[in-house]
Amino acid sequence: MGSNGLTVGVVGAAGYSGGELCRLLLNHPGVGAILPASRGELPFEQAHPNLAGCGLEFLSPELLVESAGGLDFVFYSAPAGTAMREAPRFVEAGVRVIDLSPDFRFADPVVYERIYGEPHASPHLLGEAAYGVTELYRDDVREARIVANPGCYVITGVLGLAPLVAGGLADLDRTIHISALNGTTGAGSTPRREVMHPEVFGSVLPYSMEGHRHGPELEDRIGALAGRKVCVGLSTAHGAFARGICLQASVSVRGRGDGAITRETLLDLYRDFHGPGHEGNYFVLLNELPKNGKPNAKEYDVYPSVASVAGSNFCHLGVDYDAERGIAKTIAVTDNLVKGAAGSAIQNMNVMAGIDETAGLTHYGL
Amino acid sequence: MGSNGLTVGVVGAAGYSGGELCRLLLNHPGVGAILPASRGELPFEQAHPNLAGCGLEFLSPELLVESAGGLDFVFYSAPAGTAMREAPRFVEAGVRVIDLSPDFRFADPVVYERIYGEPHASPHLLGEAAYGVTELYRDDVREARIVANPGCYVITGVLGLAPLVAGGLADLDRTIHISALNGTTGAGSTPRREVMHPEVFGSVLPYSMEGHRHGPELEDRIGALAGRKVCVGLSTAHGAFARGICLQASVSVRGRGDGAITRETLLDLYRDFHGPGHEGNYFVLLNELPKNGKPNAKEYDVYPSVASVAGSNFCHLGVDYDAERGIAKTIAVTDNLVKGAAGSAIQNMNVMAGIDETAGLTHYGL
Amino acid sequence: MGSNGLTVGVVGAAGYSGGELCRLLLNHPGVGAILPASRGELPFEQAHPNLAGCGLEFLSPELLVESAGGLDFVFYSAPAGTAMREAPRFVEAGVRVIDLSPDFRFADPVVYERIYGEPHASPHLLGEAAYGVTELYRDDVREARIVANPGCYVITGVLGLAPLVAGGLADLDRTIHISALNGTTGAGSTPRREVMHPEVFGSVLPYSMEGHRHGPELEDRIGALAGRKVCVGLSTAHGAFARGICLQASVSVRGRGDGAITRETLLDLYRDFHGPGHEGNYFVLLNELPKNGKPNAKEYDVYPSVASVAGSNFCHLGVDYDAERGIAKTIAVTDNLVKGAAGSAIQNMNVMAGIDETAGLTHYGL
Amino acid sequence: MGSNGLTVGVVGAAGYSGGELCRLLLNHPGVGAILPASRGELPFEQAHPNLAGCGLEFLSPELLVESAGGLDFVFYSAPAGTAMREAPRFVEAGVRVIDLSPDFRFADPVVYERIYGEPHASPHLLGEAAYGVTELYRDDVREARIVANPGCYVITGVLGLAPLVAGGLADLDRTIHISALNGTTGAGSTPRREVMHPEVFGSVLPYSMEGHRHGPELEDRIGALAGRKVCVGLSTAHGAFARGICLQASVSVRGRGDGAITRETLLDLYRDFHGPGHEGNYFVLLNELPKNGKPNAKEYDVYPSVASVAGSNFCHLGVDYDAERGIAKTIAVTDNLVKGAAGSAIQNMNVMAGIDETAGLTHYGL
Repeated sequence: MGSNGLTVGVVGAAGYSGGELCRLLLNHPGVGAILPASRGELPFEQAHPNLAGCGLEFLSPELLVESAGGLDFVFYSAPAGTAMREAPRFVEAGVRVIDLSPDFRFADPVVYERIYGEPHASPHLLGEAAYGVTELYRDDVREARIVANPGCYVITGVLGLAPLVAGGLADLDRTIHISALNGTTGAGSTPRREVMHPEVFGSVLPYSMEGHRHGPELEDRIGALAGRKVCVGLSTAHGAFARGICLQASVSVRGRGDGAITRETLLDLYRDFHGPGHEGNYFVLLNELPKNGKPNAKEYDVYPSVASVAGSNFCHLGVDYDAERGIAKTIAVTDNLVKGAAGSAIQNMNVMAGIDETAGLTHYGL
Repeated sequence: MGSNGLTVGVVGAAGYSGGELCRLLLNHPGVGAILPASRGELPFEQAHPNLAGCGLEFLSPELLVESAGGLDFVFYSAPAGTAMREAPRFVEAGVRVIDLSPDFRFADPVVYERIYGEPHASPHLLGEAAYGVTELYRDDVREARIVANPGCYVITGVLGLAPLVAGGLADLDRTIHISALNGTTGAGSTPRREVMHPEVFGSVLPYSMEGHRHGPELEDRIGALAGRKVCVGLSTAHGAFARGICLQASVSVRGRGDGAITRETLLDLYRDFHGPGHEGNYFVLLNELPKNGKPNAKEYDVYPSVASVAGSNFCHLGVDYDAERGIAKTIAVTDNLVKGAAGSAIQNMNVMAGIDETAGLTHYGL
Repeated sequence: MGSNGLTVGVVGAAGYSGGELCRLLLNHPGVGAILPASRGELPFEQAHPNLAGCGLEFLSPELLVESAGGLDFVFYSAPAGTAMREAPRFVEAGVRVIDLSPDFRFADPVVYERIYGEPHASPHLLGEAAYGVTELYRDDVREARIVANPGCYVITGVLGLAPLVAGGLADLDRTIHISALNGTTGAGSTPRREVMHPEVFGSVLPYSMEGHRHGPELEDRIGALAGRKVCVGLSTAHGAFARGICLQASVSVRGRGDGAITRETLLDLYRDFHGPGHEGNYFVLLNELPKNGKPNAKEYDVYPSVASVAGSNFCHLGVDYDAERGIAKTIAVTDNLVKGAAGSAIQNMNVMAGIDETAGLTHYGL
Repeated sequence: MGSNGLTVGVVGAAGYSGGELCRLLLNHPGVGAILPASRGELPFEQAHPNLAGCGLEFLSPELLVESAGGLDFVFYSAPAGTAMREAPRFVEAGVRVIDLSPDFRFADPVVYERIYGEPHASPHLLGEAAYGVTELYRDDVREARIVANPGCYVITGVLGLAPLVAGGLADLDRTIHISALNGTTGAGSTPRREVMHPEVFGSVLPYSMEGHRHGPELEDRIGALAGRKVCVGLSTAHGAFARGICLQASVSVRGRGDGAITRETLLDLYRDFHGPGHEGNYFVLLNELPKNGKPNAKEYDVYPSVASVAGSNFCHLGVDYDAERGIAKTIAVTDNLVKGAAGSAIQNMNVMAGIDETAGLTHYGL
């Protein structure tokens, strides 16, 4: 880290997550230089017109590798299969790698190959990669040379389900059912007919109902929290908004027949796990509004809204309890490009660099 | 029915469903006169600017009751508690009643009172009311003096789940999990802060997570198809679109371990139940596209889209199978104001009047 | 016209306007058979999922030409340059051609070449093509072998400006300024980055500010109504909605200093030109709401809304007067795919076939 | 200014602009304490769920006035008529006032009364109020006790038109025509039927076509730049997005017949006035992309997009030239709640406080 701050590279900087990394890094007080790399043909400010005036320009990925000696961190925001090939070069040069792709998310290369269809190129590094849900694995992240940043559905689901699962209330012999809406930026920036505006407008696009690629990653992580194998049924769709994930989970509750469980039980569990307000996990905020009794209380007020976290690194959580059926409901919302990608990657960088975990990330949603 | 066609009244004609009844009735070849009633202060064409030029004007609900003698049908598109008080007057005058509210949906008045908070005003009529999922109860509907038109979530869920449940594939010892997005017209036309455009735009509004009012109705109807008590966990939200329901159901499958079940198994079940194309249940269409092998096959193509049914009385169905977890997935989409309300009400009217079930309803979605 | 109704072909049936032609023709009481032609690789119901169950399938354009003998009408919904090459074959076979492209919109082939960049292939047919604003040129349309259906901006602008221009109130020494928002279906169905959902969502996309291709067509038609050369400054953008045009025109008014002109003056002019309600030009409806004095009158109520005409063939008009500056304001809204394309094409077909001008087109907007 | 930074009050903090002031001030490095005042009944974090966890709570406006002694600045984000009554109390207490309402925008109290319908309550302060387009009036703002923050249409229009008008190219004997779309947050946070989500979705809501209240303010400011009286025809509408203004202006150009004017002429004029990139007026950025010749150049790329400035204090400008008609086109986009309200108010505060003009405002749009 030079006197002017960290020097960071971004591979895959022409895509939505890459652009978001640049947007956030440009306003990060601890970052001195940003080197965005892309093979795309568009100039930087044409790829990211919101960053007009910022002065960044793409360099080639090859040039970035050659510049490895001068980097503190490199972010990979590239398709699966890229980082696992290139990361060793950076690691060997002493550059710490934060990978937003799935390449380093599974300890077992066999699992990777089964899901992503090709053998892992750097299996020797899988063991040391930290899994980047900062809130759960801060200590691992701090020391890691490689951080596997979680998938956007996974981080949202893990933050939303952890208190229930770790708290022992969930009946894990039953399937956890998750239904999640992701913004259309989650479909990537390559033009495709099904993501054209007229196709999406006024609609909802379910996809991968037979089993989303993030499903096994989610089961892996929820299972780790539970200390046992779990089954997670994941239903995913793109909603007609650009940013954000609204993830709703239904969890069967143990001992649900005894009447002792209420929404308050769940709120206590979540407060215990994540801490209240900004005092615990800074970016995780629980909506604790009572459902009745407040002036002008509205039915919708007790659940978090995707729009509230747009552009921010926050994860808002809400809970409720269907007492008649013994089902705990959790709603977790994040901005898929920030807490679900670029923001948590930078949060990990902060932890790795030994600076304030919230640096450059404290802005509230729109 | 006069020589010019049916004369129909619409109570609650200033709301979204009421306006939709008028829109569809205005183009119905078998309807001669429409009498829309409302207590609202807005003139008809200001309440429904899309119907400019149609010439309809509101009359008072009292005047409509006085005109009962001249009516063939009356639609109730009013809040819960209205039709159960007023319907007897029409029934006694020989006018057939199609009620879009929940007033006549439960055979047992105790259930009604538990959910809607007041004793039923006409319990003697509950026994004879037909439940208006036309596709399932045509014969009952044909003869009924009162038809209880189903809730929008319920009709969508019942059409989507019936083949699975009636076909015996569903493991009904397990909870059926439904996650449904409804358009904002489903929140009614009364101005409220939470349904203001800036609050909804770019967002999703979960609500009633502790148990939606339509939950028991759904369990009632799914249970009737299954011939046993069932548990349905229902999670509801408003999506940032005006019209439509996208309902996704996850159903644990019996014998799911044996590998014999595939998406094709489910498609067969659905074809058997609803019939192919327009030859079976005319308004229910199954998306049978193979997931691979078609030219330019797209991942999204195998699931139905809300936008495709906008403005129409169609229900599009899609199915998939998560083989690893033994979960059948069903996606059912309707226009909440048409098939979910006004359209199915008119479909019922057609059956009751002995005319073509599809009259005035054959238009495709936008 | 066979005993079962008209047989019609549609060239370019895979695009948005082509799909819309099919949607409307499928519910047209006077049409017996539809032959949609396309070179696209998608099967019909995958290209137009809203038409699921309709049974149509694409044939090749070559096959359609070979079938010319059996057709009553052929619609061209293809890019500029197609119809001018192929139409003669149909015309010679006695098939009447309705062209939604610009190929037959200018009497002078030099103008066509200047705007569209290649010489006209059938200049001998330009003289006989009728210009298809049905409301203005019914008699020409009735007898024509070729109808040039107007551009969507042009038909909306002409219907909105005609009363002012023809009524002599407009000061045509001054430029008429038009600002128009078109839905994203107006950008065509070919995947392009700038029309991807994330790029359009929450935004507005101005384009062709240096002079839209439809500008000269608009000046041509407004000029014809005025009996003189006129200057029309046209500013166009895509709004973040799928369907519809909202066109606003600002017209300097003659004698604007004398205080005698009010909004009522303009309303009278429009009533005189288009007729009241459905009694004049059936599809053109003027919003005559007084700005004050109605119960619950709202500021927005006096102007027409794009959403009100979605899916319909109606054109809603509103007018206002900026007395301080002597500027008449006109707002005209249409569905760009219906009144702006497929709907008015069918309206022309009706006139040409000698059937009710409104056949198949009477449905109100959503 | 205490050792921990500025102490600022916000009157009207429950509305959209008030919430935005709080959002930006919470991340302002020079602000130590924020006192939001409101009479509303909702608790702070229920009024602004995006600010969950921030810890702010509303106090009563009366209490804020009593606390005047401890404040450095007070922002008025209240309806017209509030600040003119209350500001003197703060001014006398040495608190500098930044008013986002129209109360101090006109030097002449007669003009205020004509537009806003009541006599001005503090005419003696009108003379000293600085008009808060920081880019144009920095020196006035620096010393002022009261800053009249401009209307959102006005600041966007002035930044967009200033180079043309001040540069002498505009033919000001002709009316300048402006057509502007504003997000629905511009309609305020009070629930009204016409701003309900189903009414706005897929639509455009023109309003105040007879002359918007901001029209005279715009003519006043453009006239000041021109050194003469000007006529501005303003057409306004709400677009179906929450945030942002897209303002398009058409300006007749002097000597337009001589062929010497091109888009480059305009670009030069804008560069001269605002400076290139962030070197001139930091928040004003000109889109200088050539229209052809870039790899993958897109038609839409040369014009700025509302989405690019969402959440930011930037104003993006684009220009084009309709050579055939001699009309210069300008497109200016801002976030109506930031550069159009809260952001420019804070920019003014920065200048008044003698700190970096961009403090707390450097974040790029989403």
